[in-house]
Parts: sequence; structure tokens; C-alpha cells
Amino acid sequence: MSTSKILIVGSMAFDDLQFPMPVPDPSRPGETGDTFDDVVGGSATYASLAASCYAPVRIVAVVGDDFPKAMLEQLGRRRIDTTGVERAAGLTFRWKGRYRPDMVGRDTLDTQLNVFADFRPKLPDHYRDTEVVLLGNIHPALQLEVLDQVSSPQLVIADTMDFWISGEAETLAALLKRIDVLVINDEEARLLSGIHNIVRAAKDILTRGPDKLIIKRGEHGSLYFDDDGIFAAPALPLETVADPTGAGDSFAGGLVGYLACQGNARHTTMRHAIVHGTATASHCVQAVGTGGLANLELNHVEQRVKEIRELYYLGELP
Amino acid sequence: MSTSKILIVGSMAFDDLQFPMPVPDPSRPGETGDTFDDVVGGSATYASLAASCYAPVRIVAVVGDDFPKAMLEQLGRRRIDTTGVERAAGLTFRWKGRYRPDMVGRDTLDTQLNVFADFRPKLPDHYRDTEVVLLGNIHPALQLEVLDQVSSPQLVIADTMDFWISGEAETLAALLKRIDVLVINDEEARLLSGIHNIVRAAKDILTRGPDKLIIKRGEHGSLYFDDDGIFAAPALPLETVADPTGAGDSFAGGLVGYLACQGNARHTTMRHAIVHGTATASHCVQAVGTGGLANLELNHVEQRVKEIRELYYLGELP
Repeated sequence: MSTSKILIVGSMAFDDLQFPMPVPDPSRPGETGDTFDDVVGGSATYASLAASCYAPVRIVAVVGDDFPKAMLEQLGRRRIDTTGVERAAGLTFRWKGRYRPDMVGRDTLDTQLNVFADFRPKLPDHYRDTEVVLLGNIHPALQLEVLDQVSSPQLVIADTMDFWISGEAETLAALLKRIDVLVINDEEARLLSGIHNIVRAAKDILTRGPDKLIIKRGEHGSLYFDDDGIFAAPALPLETVADPTGAGDSFAGGLVGYLACQGNARHTTMRHAIVHGTATASHCVQAVGTGGLANLELNHVEQRVKEIRELYYLGELP
Repeated sequence: MSTSKILIVGSMAFDDLQFPMPVPDPSRPGETGDTFDDVVGGSATYASLAASCYAPVRIVAVVGDDFPKAMLEQLGRRRIDTTGVERAAGLTFRWKGRYRPDMVGRDTLDTQLNVFADFRPKLPDHYRDTEVVLLGNIHPALQLEVLDQVSSPQLVIADTMDFWISGEAETLAALLKRIDVLVINDEEARLLSGIHNIVRAAKDILTRGPDKLIIKRGEHGSLYFDDDGIFAAPALPLETVADPTGAGDSFAGGLVGYLACQGNARHTTMRHAIVHGTATASHCVQAVGTGGLANLELNHVEQRVKEIRELYYLGELP
């Protein structure tokens, strides 16, 4: 990993969000609301903003002609190359969801694929030398298409979801053989492996291709498995969570950003990268949409990293 | 805390246990079963066995005339003083439960209070000088009665449950003012405080009496709150869980045992005590009933403490 550039593919979207209680309104400082429409989101948006704290990012995605040019310009000001964002005729992908009272569970009220339905990622030529690749949660066939266009990827990190695990098992199996790190949640790990116990599920998944597995557990943090053993990273307990949307994507973005900076993915580096991802996600969830990431700087992340490390500090190992 | 003796009050019981899959049968080595009747359990039994790895224990409880004398003798061989175990005419408290497929959730099929219904704890005279007291999960009025009989308790740790939080709020409020450490799970913390966010729930509970709060989160570990901040302890991810019964009680037993040995409850000591409690509980859940604790020795616990610390080791704080 001689360059620190990062390639991120995923969705760019409008989210219509409903919350069980009023949360700070990003467009009206000092006021709150419980329903927000047309919030710019998507896995690539969240992950890119997060990763751009660490290193330049190249983004591959599709938007419709309704997507705000100002948002692409905002990404550009954060070292995010949007040359690979295709602007297609039609409407941008849209997700409408309602969070449950626990602010963890959520119900999808509507999904409109729109221009995303025909998305075939095409990498600009100057993207092809990227060495660190984050394959956000899209159809595994598209994740493979992106990978095919990268000349010699050194580190490939992929996210996926229950929908692809159940419906695209063969394609996903092919993808798993070509990635280094898989990032999924605990229920997805159980579904993918067919094993309930999370340690045995992880061992099974590590035989399917990736030699590193991160299992996200939301407010309970994450577990990381590699041939060195298990690493457990707690989440930072927060007094206020405004909007959990994008938490997993900003976790992955912070993770990949840290790894790109370090230039290796050794097990100690991975542990630190997970804490950095956790810290990045903690900023994300404290504002609606991308508000917590838009102006995030590395020193803000580092401050949270310090808080997380103090959270479980016990002194030197005996 | 000049003496390291520990007083534990709680239930002694027969448990009838049903599991969703076969687990190792403690009475038939090499064989498995999914239903076990007449398993000796109860919060005082689990906690005493756990604490006895660290220091001598004095137990206060009631059993019926059907309770096996051999079990009391077994406790006695582990430095557990059973003088305070009243043997009443009638049947021992009995709990029948079935674990759900996730081996976390469980449904109570039957509860028979039996001799526990009329239990009024009476401390033998030589118990009264105990300085470290663990009030297991029983009616808060009985927890108070025990506390009234201890001449000058230096450290009081209490467990409780949703049933008392909802049904005995006033008595529980009185108890909270007299304890140092409250140990409950996350749902109980929400119920007690009326606040969903766990950080704000904890802050609220710390205004009600105890200046230390441990919130257990099962397989996700625990959170500890005091005026120094928050400590997050992950659980040790295990490949096999035979029987989760008694996990919380053995956690509390290991915790109180470690604290009694250290002779203080300063915040760094509390952090280490929580890891020791976690390690003790990890042994408990790997056998049916008290099988994982019956012959547990401190070096077994210390080995697990080492594994837990390695689980989230990141090097010295910067």
C-alpha cells in the first residue's frame, strides 16, 4: 500500500427519516423535529465522508438528476473525488424508514431504487490504481464488477446484508473469496454461516475467503476475528443519539481510512482501526443525516478514540 | 475492610431446566441431554461458590427438608459457612424454566416458593461482623433485614429484578440508600429509572443511593458507572454455552470475592473486580447447574481474566 488513496463504492440516496422522539434539526439550529425528508444519505456518502478524515477518497456511485450539486461539491472540498459518480436521468435512490422507540430497530416504509436499479459501476481510468477498496453494501455482482476494474487491489473490505446473503448466495460466495475483510452484523453472520453461536459462526465464515471478520453489534460495539484471536471493541456509550442512520457505513469508512493511512492490516493495526471506526461512527449518530460527518476532522476522531480507550483501560497486561 | 470474609444472602433452589439443544450432562460424563430436573441452584448457591474462590463466605438462606445434605457439605469444603442456612419443614424453592433457541432468553414455566415464602433471614451471631455483604436478588425488605443485622458493613452490593422494581418501589428505594454498588441488567436499569438511554438511566440511578452501578448485558458484557466515568467490560466470547443459569450470580460472586480480597472498592479496583466477575461467570455457563463452579480455583479464573484482557488489549494509553 504505497498510496493512501481509497476507493469506495456504494449507494448515494435520499432518506426520509422518522424518529420516535424529537431530535435536533440540522437545518434549523436550536430546533428539533421527528420527521425529516430528503436527507442526503447512502452508504457511499457516509463512508466517504468518514474516510476522508484520513486520506483522499475516490467514490463510485450513481445519482439521479434531482441530486443536489452542492452535496457533490461539499464532498469535493473534503478530498473526495466524485468523478466516478454517474449522474443518470431519473430520480435518486430513496429509502424511507421509521426508527422504533429504542432508536436501534427500524422499519423500512418504502424503498425506491430509481436510477440505482440499472447501476453498472464504471471506474474512471485514474481510479484503477487504488490499493484500498471498500465495497459498500450493494449487489455482490456489482461489488465484483468494481473489483474487476481495480488493477491490483492490496486490501479489500466488503459489507453486505441479509438480502444478498439469502438471495445471492452463489455470487456472494464468489465475492468472499476475493476480499480480505468482511464487515457484517451479528444476525448477518448467523444467517451466512447457519450457526447461532457467534464464535463458531465467525470461524466458519473465515473458511469462506476473508481472513479477517468484523461483526458489528450496534450499541454493544463489535467483535473482530482473525488468526490471532478475538478483539472486542465496546461502543462509546452516548447520552444522545440523534440518528443511527449511517453508523455502520461511517464505521467502515473510519476503519478503511485508518488502514489506508497505516499502510498495513496487521492484527494490531486492525484493532486500532476498529477503534477508529467506532469513534467515527459515534460522531455520525449524534446528528441527523451526514451532519455529524460533514465537518469532522481527524482530531475530533482522535479525541473519541482516547475516550474509547479509557473506557476499558485496565493498565498494562501482567 | 480488615477481614476478607463475605456475607451472601439469596435463594437456594432446585431448578428444572430445559434447553433448545443437547448440552453436556453433568451426571453422565460424555453424554448429553436437553432436560435436567432437580438441579441444585439459587442465587446464593451460585454466588457463594464463585466468591469462595477468593475468600471465606458466610451464607444466609433457607432450604426445605428435601435439600441434599451433600450439597451443604460440598459448600462447607469450599470455605463456605452454612450455619446461616435454615432448614425449614417443607420443600425447597423450585424454578422451572425453558431456554429459547438463542440460549439467552428464557421463559419461566413454574415457580414454587415453598419454604422461601416464609423466609425471614436470621444471621448467626458470628456473621454480624462481616464487612462485605452481597444482597442477592430477594425481596428488598429481606435484603434490608439482613443489612440491619450486620454491625458495621463496609461495602454492600445488591442485586434486584424487575419484579421488585415494579412491585416494591418504596422498599427498594429505601434499600438503594443503604448500598454502595447496585448490580442490575440493562432492562432493569431502564425500568428503575424510567429512562431508555442507558447512560442517562445510569446517571439517574446514581442519584438514588448507590455511588457505583454495574449494568449487566449478558453476552455483551457489562458497563460500570461511578464518579470516575464509565468502564466497559466485554464478555468472553465462548464457543459453547451449556447453561446460562447463574451467570449473573456468579458474576456478582466473583466481583464481591475480588473486592473482599483487595480490601477497597476504588474505581480501578472496581474495574478489575468486574473483569474477575466476568471471568467467573464464563466458567459458570460452561456446565449445567453449578458444575462449572464446584471445583473452580482462583488460577482458573485468573487464566480467563488474562484472556479477557487480551481480548481488548491495545497497548498503553498514549
